[in-house]
Amino acid sequence: MTNDHPSPTAASSANPAYCALTATFTRLYRLGHLGAIVGWDQAAMMPPKGNAARGAALAELQVLMHQTLTDPRLSGLLQSAATEALQDTERAGLREMRRDWELANLLPERLVQAQSLAGTRCEHAWRSQRKANDWKGFWENFEPVVTLAREEAELLSQARGVSPYDALMDKYEPGAQSAEIERIFGAVKTWLPGLVQQVRAKQATEAVPGAVGPFPVAQQRALGVEVMGLLGFDFEGGRLDISTHPFCGGVAEDVRITTRYSEDDFVRSLMGIIHETGHARYEQNLPRDGVHLPVGRARSMGIHESQSLSFEMQLGRSQAFVQWLAPLLQKHLGAQPAFAADNLARLLTRVQPGLIRVDADELTYPAHIILRFEIERALINGAIEPADLPALWDEKMQAYLGLDTRGNFRDGCLQDIHWPSGSFGYFPSYTLGAMYAAQYFASMRTQHADLDARIACGDVSPVMDWLNRNIWSQASLWPTDALVQRATGEALNPAHFRTHLEQRYLGG
Amino acid sequence: MTNDHPSPTAASSANPAYCALTATFTRLYRLGHLGAIVGWDQAAMMPPKGNAARGAALAELQVLMHQTLTDPRLSGLLQSAATEALQDTERAGLREMRRDWELANLLPERLVQAQSLAGTRCEHAWRSQRKANDWKGFWENFEPVVTLAREEAELLSQARGVSPYDALMDKYEPGAQSAEIERIFGAVKTWLPGLVQQVRAKQATEAVPGAVGPFPVAQQRALGVEVMGLLGFDFEGGRLDISTHPFCGGVAEDVRITTRYSEDDFVRSLMGIIHETGHARYEQNLPRDGVHLPVGRARSMGIHESQSLSFEMQLGRSQAFVQWLAPLLQKHLGAQPAFAADNLARLLTRVQPGLIRVDADELTYPAHIILRFEIERALINGAIEPADLPALWDEKMQAYLGLDTRGNFRDGCLQDIHWPSGSFGYFPSYTLGAMYAAQYFASMRTQHADLDARIACGDVSPVMDWLNRNIWSQASLWPTDALVQRATGEALNPAHFRTHLEQRYLGG
Repeated sequence: MTNDHPSPTAASSANPAYCALTATFTRLYRLGHLGAIVGWDQAAMMPPKGNAARGAALAELQVLMHQTLTDPRLSGLLQSAATEALQDTERAGLREMRRDWELANLLPERLVQAQSLAGTRCEHAWRSQRKANDWKGFWENFEPVVTLAREEAELLSQARGVSPYDALMDKYEPGAQSAEIERIFGAVKTWLPGLVQQVRAKQATEAVPGAVGPFPVAQQRALGVEVMGLLGFDFEGGRLDISTHPFCGGVAEDVRITTRYSEDDFVRSLMGIIHETGHARYEQNLPRDGVHLPVGRARSMGIHESQSLSFEMQLGRSQAFVQWLAPLLQKHLGAQPAFAADNLARLLTRVQPGLIRVDADELTYPAHIILRFEIERALINGAIEPADLPALWDEKMQAYLGLDTRGNFRDGCLQDIHWPSGSFGYFPSYTLGAMYAAQYFASMRTQHADLDARIACGDVSPVMDWLNRNIWSQASLWPTDALVQRATGEALNPAHFRTHLEQRYLGG
Repeated sequence: MTNDHPSPTAASSANPAYCALTATFTRLYRLGHLGAIVGWDQAAMMPPKGNAARGAALAELQVLMHQTLTDPRLSGLLQSAATEALQDTERAGLREMRRDWELANLLPERLVQAQSLAGTRCEHAWRSQRKANDWKGFWENFEPVVTLAREEAELLSQARGVSPYDALMDKYEPGAQSAEIERIFGAVKTWLPGLVQQVRAKQATEAVPGAVGPFPVAQQRALGVEVMGLLGFDFEGGRLDISTHPFCGGVAEDVRITTRYSEDDFVRSLMGIIHETGHARYEQNLPRDGVHLPVGRARSMGIHESQSLSFEMQLGRSQAFVQWLAPLLQKHLGAQPAFAADNLARLLTRVQPGLIRVDADELTYPAHIILRFEIERALINGAIEPADLPALWDEKMQAYLGLDTRGNFRDGCLQDIHWPSGSFGYFPSYTLGAMYAAQYFASMRTQHADLDARIACGDVSPVMDWLNRNIWSQASLWPTDALVQRATGEALNPAHFRTHLEQRYLGG
């Protein structure tokens, strides 16, 4: 008896509806490929005068993809396929197709277009308004963005029977519920401020010489490329380039990560590269035979962030990894006292509450996320209005991080691109990702008592094998809860995150 | 009375059919933008493992564009628009739309697909077969390519009442007739061999020290960028990168040129950059308000080559330009005897018959083109079969350049990408372009007696102004003959090319 290895793409001719759906979603994947590559180009390569034509071309593609997903024939095909004799992987494939289809079909084209226009206008103006600390100017463009997002949330909410904010969050975290997130974040709020205080008191007693630049860009890049190599980035199927806002883009078969360099500071580019390499390896290791279907994609943004944070936080800033990293720094950037392994480990784990989320350390980062989650949920559910944002921001920054942000909109509620562009419900993914990552490493350590010893020698294979087996190879076959349960033997358990932080920042 | 500056895009509401056509062709332009950028990426950026997914994505886009152009409604719209009260520019716009429409609709989708598959297979195998000098292996894939090209030619030929070869040439040179090209090339054959002999005898008496490398890539690039700047390349609307086969790609709003560097030889990258900059300035200066319609595009491949050859040959290798170029070489590559202006001018105009077209000098280049024109015309019109290619190639290389190519398929009939990929009828464009360029400069010299004196000082504005006024700003408003007549006061007159060569290589 032979084992026929069913794959997500294998649709037997006995299932004509599922077959036809597969063809449509393959077409969508190919169109998405074009958008992903020109999107990367726009951020990493495009000269300024190309922007208007690029915007028009991408909008045309959006319309085409929306038309493909709203083709009236799909509704019948989805219904018919549900009655076909599908294998388990095909059943999961159908579930993910229906998700994409619903999201496109629940929203009228008028709303999609209006949101695209309002978001583009608001985000474009925001780029200069942020620099000018111009809250009032921003607020005028932002009001319609919020109105339209509420309209979207309301439509999705009615169809799915969840709260408006949950309906938006579901786009990034399928199945996530804000009541549960509130419970998790509420617990974090009970112990995080105290932990930050303790750690800062401890660190105040340590002398940690900083690294002295300049660090030429070419040397930083060579260092980054060598580290990417150790972490298994496949340069035959991806690239490293430069962009103002670092990201991981492209397609699974050709992953494009970016970073930015400052000659004063090698840490930001290096840790940024390690972070994006985590995203990249997820994409590069999604099973090739299913990557063109929704079920073959990365599971969610929280799971995606759990990969980047496994690389950057769990692995990249660990004592063990730094043992291996320190000589590399000396090789590429020259020797200096700051690059002694012990000192480097301290440098990479300094805690300092600050105004800017993307510059935050591992320990204070969740406070930035909790603040945003609470504000955007209230905004979408109608409990507050856009005009209330600055005051609420000031209040929460004072409460959670002890910082005064009054009048400083630029480094306050204007600092992120998410809200100006109309993305509400994304922020929780960052801290969910950090929690998943801590849980993965707790699981790995139960399987590999020598994990840190091996990492210190540059052998990261136990980490990569675990991630590949439990996350990368699973794509979207399972709902997020089931994926995490299968991988670690339990549902999301934030205790691992707390234990990780306490051990790294206080213990040992 | 006001002058309302009619533009190719302004379609009044009184012309609903023309309006609707404009919308469709704008959509096609935007889709074409995606293809152009990912096509550039494929050649200049993409890592190898991205190729299969890229091919599938581009094929999907091709199908979509073909479907858009073969939408049955277009036929009626084209008929209706012809009866509308169009302005002259709109009338020209309609003519160019009809051209695109005809080309797509005269060919059945089955043929288009079969050609794409056969061409891709043949070209892919050719890349290794050429290296292996494997004519027989190549021939097996090439036969179906020729069969399908003949089928295409036959269909176009019947619809248009021209010969099959003329029907293919028309894709690159609208309206070109092979009888006329045969007459022009026939004349060249009467004087070119003698001229080459005379020039070689003259040059044999000259001592011309060669440039001594290595020339580091970064320095060659800096030199290229400075020269592009003088030639007016707009870096806000374009880029310079590297690819194996240099080209000018991207879109008019964002022009991407490429070159390749060898540390032994700065001439190839520098002259390649100047060549592509000619293509680029044409694209960058097409009128912005019409560039999304067929009438707003570059006129033809021959006219495109006339721009690159105006830059590389007429300007770039001229005594005058070299006066300005020589100190730049010394600045970027260091001083050496070869970089004295007089010597450099001689280096850039050395004549040496060789086997490879793309390495040929200005004087022997037309012989390579005439040979290919004669062979491909006979092939498409059925006078010869693919199996006859090598012998015919040997015969003509001996006759036109005195070179023995027997058994050397690699540097013979396997050297170009055009035939393996199924592009027949393109080659004449190169030499037509060289002739147009000579004719332009003759016209410029009648208007500017001090042209060379100004170029020698680095003032190329008379050249750029002339090209902009007469070629770039005219896009596809006029048939090629009319464009050249309006620009120079006469139809294509190959006498200017001959005079140019005699003056540059024998006189003065």
